[in-house]
Amino acid sequence: MKMPEMWETKITKIKPNEIRVRGYRLDELMGQVTFSEAIYLLFTGELPDKKIARLLDAIFISSIDHGVSPPSAQAAIISTSTGAPLNAAVAAGILSINDYHGGAIHNCMNVLQSAIEGLKSKDGIDSVANEVVEGFLQSKNRMPGIGHRVHTDDPRTKKLFELASNAGVAAEGVAMINAIAGAFERRGKILPINVDGAIAAILVDLDLPAELANAFFMIARMPGLCAHAYEEKTTQKPMRYIQISFHTYSGHEDREIEERK
Amino acid sequence: MKMPEMWETKITKIKPNEIRVRGYRLDELMGQVTFSEAIYLLFTGELPDKKIARLLDAIFISSIDHGVSPPSAQAAIISTSTGAPLNAAVAAGILSINDYHGGAIHNCMNVLQSAIEGLKSKDGIDSVANEVVEGFLQSKNRMPGIGHRVHTDDPRTKKLFELASNAGVAAEGVAMINAIAGAFERRGKILPINVDGAIAAILVDLDLPAELANAFFMIARMPGLCAHAYEEKTTQKPMRYIQISFHTYSGHEDREIEERK
Amino acid sequence: MKMPEMWETKITKIKPNEIRVRGYRLDELMGQVTFSEAIYLLFTGELPDKKIARLLDAIFISSIDHGVSPPSAQAAIISTSTGAPLNAAVAAGILSINDYHGGAIHNCMNVLQSAIEGLKSKDGIDSVANEVVEGFLQSKNRMPGIGHRVHTDDPRTKKLFELASNAGVAAEGVAMINAIAGAFERRGKILPINVDGAIAAILVDLDLPAELANAFFMIARMPGLCAHAYEEKTTQKPMRYIQISFHTYSGHEDREIEERK
Amino acid sequence: MKMPEMWETKITKIKPNEIRVRGYRLDELMGQVTFSEAIYLLFTGELPDKKIARLLDAIFISSIDHGVSPPSAQAAIISTSTGAPLNAAVAAGILSINDYHGGAIHNCMNVLQSAIEGLKSKDGIDSVANEVVEGFLQSKNRMPGIGHRVHTDDPRTKKLFELASNAGVAAEGVAMINAIAGAFERRGKILPINVDGAIAAILVDLDLPAELANAFFMIARMPGLCAHAYEEKTTQKPMRYIQISFHTYSGHEDREIEERK
Repeated sequence: MKMPEMWETKITKIKPNEIRVRGYRLDELMGQVTFSEAIYLLFTGELPDKKIARLLDAIFISSIDHGVSPPSAQAAIISTSTGAPLNAAVAAGILSINDYHGGAIHNCMNVLQSAIEGLKSKDGIDSVANEVVEGFLQSKNRMPGIGHRVHTDDPRTKKLFELASNAGVAAEGVAMINAIAGAFERRGKILPINVDGAIAAILVDLDLPAELANAFFMIARMPGLCAHAYEEKTTQKPMRYIQISFHTYSGHEDREIEERK
Repeated sequence: MKMPEMWETKITKIKPNEIRVRGYRLDELMGQVTFSEAIYLLFTGELPDKKIARLLDAIFISSIDHGVSPPSAQAAIISTSTGAPLNAAVAAGILSINDYHGGAIHNCMNVLQSAIEGLKSKDGIDSVANEVVEGFLQSKNRMPGIGHRVHTDDPRTKKLFELASNAGVAAEGVAMINAIAGAFERRGKILPINVDGAIAAILVDLDLPAELANAFFMIARMPGLCAHAYEEKTTQKPMRYIQISFHTYSGHEDREIEERK
Repeated sequence: MKMPEMWETKITKIKPNEIRVRGYRLDELMGQVTFSEAIYLLFTGELPDKKIARLLDAIFISSIDHGVSPPSAQAAIISTSTGAPLNAAVAAGILSINDYHGGAIHNCMNVLQSAIEGLKSKDGIDSVANEVVEGFLQSKNRMPGIGHRVHTDDPRTKKLFELASNAGVAAEGVAMINAIAGAFERRGKILPINVDGAIAAILVDLDLPAELANAFFMIARMPGLCAHAYEEKTTQKPMRYIQISFHTYSGHEDREIEERK
Repeated sequence: MKMPEMWETKITKIKPNEIRVRGYRLDELMGQVTFSEAIYLLFTGELPDKKIARLLDAIFISSIDHGVSPPSAQAAIISTSTGAPLNAAVAAGILSINDYHGGAIHNCMNVLQSAIEGLKSKDGIDSVANEVVEGFLQSKNRMPGIGHRVHTDDPRTKKLFELASNAGVAAEGVAMINAIAGAFERRGKILPINVDGAIAAILVDLDLPAELANAFFMIARMPGLCAHAYEEKTTQKPMRYIQISFHTYSGHEDREIEERK
C-alpha cells in the first residue's frame, strides 16, 4: 500500500456544523447574496459587486434554454424516453455540450485573448481583427462565437452587451469581437455575434479563465435540460419515435413581464 | 420509414431572432430577473414573487458545495485527473448523485407528501409523525433528510427554515419534518434535519413536484463540481493517487461578509 | 481526518509485474480463452465450459448492434455531432440504456425468477404463466422481454434458444418464458419473445444474478455504440440536423458467411 | 420546420425479422463467430481470419481489469456507493478514461504512425526512434504507451507481442515501439512498454484507425467496470468512506488454468 500524500483544496472548509466557502460561512451567504453571486465567489474567491452580479444573472439566463432542438436537449429527452432517472438524462445532455454546441464560449475566449495579446504589437484593433478573420477564412474553419443556425440578429447578444456596458465591464473583449464581426462584414460575410460569442467577450472582460468558460454554459443550461427531461417524462410515452423537427410549441402565449411583488 | 408524428413542448418557443421562455422574451428577462427566478419560471411556468425568489437563492446556495469529500466531488476530481474535459468530469459527478447522496430530497418529499396526505384521516401531526418514524425503525431503513455523517446541527437547515418562515412559505411540509424529527427524539434518536430534508420540506410547501427535487440539488451543486474539477486541473498532476480523506483546506481564512457596492 | 478502514475485493490481484483475475494470471488467460470466457470468469469467479462459452458469444453478438434507431445509438450519434470524444459519446449512449431499452433483460429476469419460485407451490408451468400474464394485462404494464417495435418474429430469439438447447443450458427459464408467450397467445395476443426476453431466460438458466443482466446488454452494445459514433465523426458534418427516421442503409450488400482460415 | 435530409449508414440494416451487420445476417453470425470477431466485423466491415481473431481476444482480455485502483474503477465504485444503477456507474467509469488512463493507446498510435511515416525519408528505424525520444525528453512530456506506475516489466506486453508475432501481424508498429523503448534505454531510461503501448503497436499493424483506439480499451474494460460496480453494490454499505489504497485482495488463491471441456 502506498502511503497517501496530503493534498490541498482552497474552495470549501468543512467542520462539524460549519461550512465555509472561500472563507464565508455558507449560512451567512444564504439570504444575503444571490445564487449567481455565490457562483462567482466559488470560482474567483471573491464576491462580485452588485453591477457584475446582475450581469452574471443575465449571462446565465441568456443560455438557460433554447427549446428542444439543441443536441443537449435532444440527448436529455432521448435518455428520458428510455426510462432514465433525471441525473442520467441530464448527464447525457451535458455530454452533448462540446466544441460545436456550447463549447464555442471556450474557443472564442481563446481567440479573443490571443487577439488582444496581438494588440500590443500591432497597429490597431481593426488590423488585428482582419488578421483573425483572414486566418479563419483561409483555414475554412468557423470562428467560434460568430454565426447562428437560427438567428441572424441574436437578441441575447444585444442585451448582454448593453448590460455589460452599463456595468462598466465591456472593454477589450467586447471591442475585439465587434471588430472581428466588422472585419467579416467588410468581406461580405454578414454574421451575427451569437450568444456564445457575447458571453466569451464579457468573460474575457471579467478576467475569468477560458478553462471555466464551459462551466458558465453548463450551469446556465442545466435548468433547461432538467425542464425538458421532466416534460418528456410527464407528458410522453416511453420509447416513442422522437423526430426532433416535428414539434410544435403549445405553451403560454406571448406576454410581457409585469411588475412583481 | 415511419412517418414522424408531431409532438408538443410548452417550455420555450424559438423563432428567428426571438426566444420566449414560458411566454416571456428571454432578452426581457435578462437584466430584470435573477437566475433563480428564471429557473422557477422554467419549471413552474410562472415567475415567483420576490420573497420566494430570495428563498430559492438560499436553497441553491445551501447546496452549492460541501468540499472534496462528497462522492459527486470525488468523481469529478478523479475524472479530471485522467485528463477529462470539464463536461465529462461534471457528468461523472452528476452520475454520483443518487439516493444516498443528493437524492434524499426526492425521497424525503415523497415521505412528507404521503404523511401530509395522512393528516386528513389521522388525529394530528404527531400521531402521523410517530407512524412514519415507527415505519422506518421497523424496516431499518434510514429516513431520508434526517441525520448527517458530519453535522449534528446542520447550519443550513436553521437558515433555510428561518428564510422560509420569513417568506411566508413554511407550512405543512416544514411542520411535518419537524414533527418527524421530534418523534425520533422521543425515541432517543437525536438526529438533525439535514439540508436535504430542509429543502424537501420547503419544496413541498412551494408545491413543487417531487420528480423535480433532484433538479434543485443538481443545479445547486453544478458550480461546486465545476470548481473542484477546475482546481484539480490547475493545481495537481494528472493520475495522482487521490486519497480523499488526506486533504487539508488551505484557502481564504475565516471572514465575514462586508457591505458591498 | 477519519482513519481509513481496510476493505476487500475479490476480483483482481495486482502485484508489480503480476495481474491475477479470480486467481488466474492474466497473461496466461490471454491466448487460451476468449473474451467472452474471460467476462464470465470475471463475473462468476470460474471459467465456463466450452459449450457455454459459445453460447455467451452468441448472446453478446445478438445485441451487438441494431442500427441507428435505438435510443442509445441516437444519443451516441447526437453527442458525437457536437464534437464529443468517443468516451463521452458512448457514455451518453449508455445513459440511454434503461428500463425501456436494454433494461428489459433485468426486469424480465425478475419476472421469470419469481414465476419459477411460484412453480414450487403451483399446479404447473401453464398455470403460473397464466397468472403472470393476467397480472400484466390487469395492470396494463408491458411484460418485459415480450413484443418488439420492429420484429414480429425475432430471429435472434430462435437462434439463442437453439444454441441454449444444444449447450444443455435451456431449462426452467427458457420453459417459463415460452409458457408466458403461450399464455399471451391464448388470450389473442401474439407477441414474439424478443432478444431481451431470450437473453433473460438463458441468464436465468445460467444462474447469473439479475443485477448483472444489464451488464450483458451494455457489454454487447458497446461496440455498436463505438461504431456509430465513429461513423458519425468520419462521415458527417458537425451539428447537422439529425432526423433519425430519415436514413438509408448504404453498406455492404447481403452476403453469407464463407468458410474462413 | 426544416425538411429533414436523408442520411446514410453503412453498419447495420434492419428489416422486420432480419438484422444484417455489414451484410451478414446477425443470427448466422451467432454460433459461428466469437464476440471479438463480430466486433472486428463491425469496425472494419470484414471478418478477421482465425489468427487475428485469437489476437483480438488477447487484446480485449489484456485490458479487461486492473483491480480497484484505476480511476475508471474508482469512479464506478464511488458512483455505485451513492446508489447509482449499473449503467450510471459504468458511465462514470467511462468518463474517467482519458489521455492519462486508457487514452494512451490513441496517442501512442498517433506517435507510431507518424514515426513510421518518417521511415520513408530517414536513415533507419533507430534514427527515427531517437528523434521521437528526443522530442519527448525536450518537451518533458511522457511518451504514451511507455512506462507504468506499478509494473516494471508488463506481463501483458510480452504476451501480446508473442501472439502478434505468431499471428504474423507484428510489423512496423511493433518494431517501432521496440525501437523507441530501446532509444529510451540508450539514454538511461529503462521503461517498460506498457499494455497500452503494446495494443497501440498491434492496432497500427492491423491497420486500424487511431480514432478507434479508445474503443478497444473501453470495450475491454467494460466488464471490469461492471464487476467492480456489482461487487460494491453487493458487498458494501452505501456512502462508506472509500480510501482506494486501503484495500486488500481476498479472492481466489493463485491457480493455473486446467484443461477444460
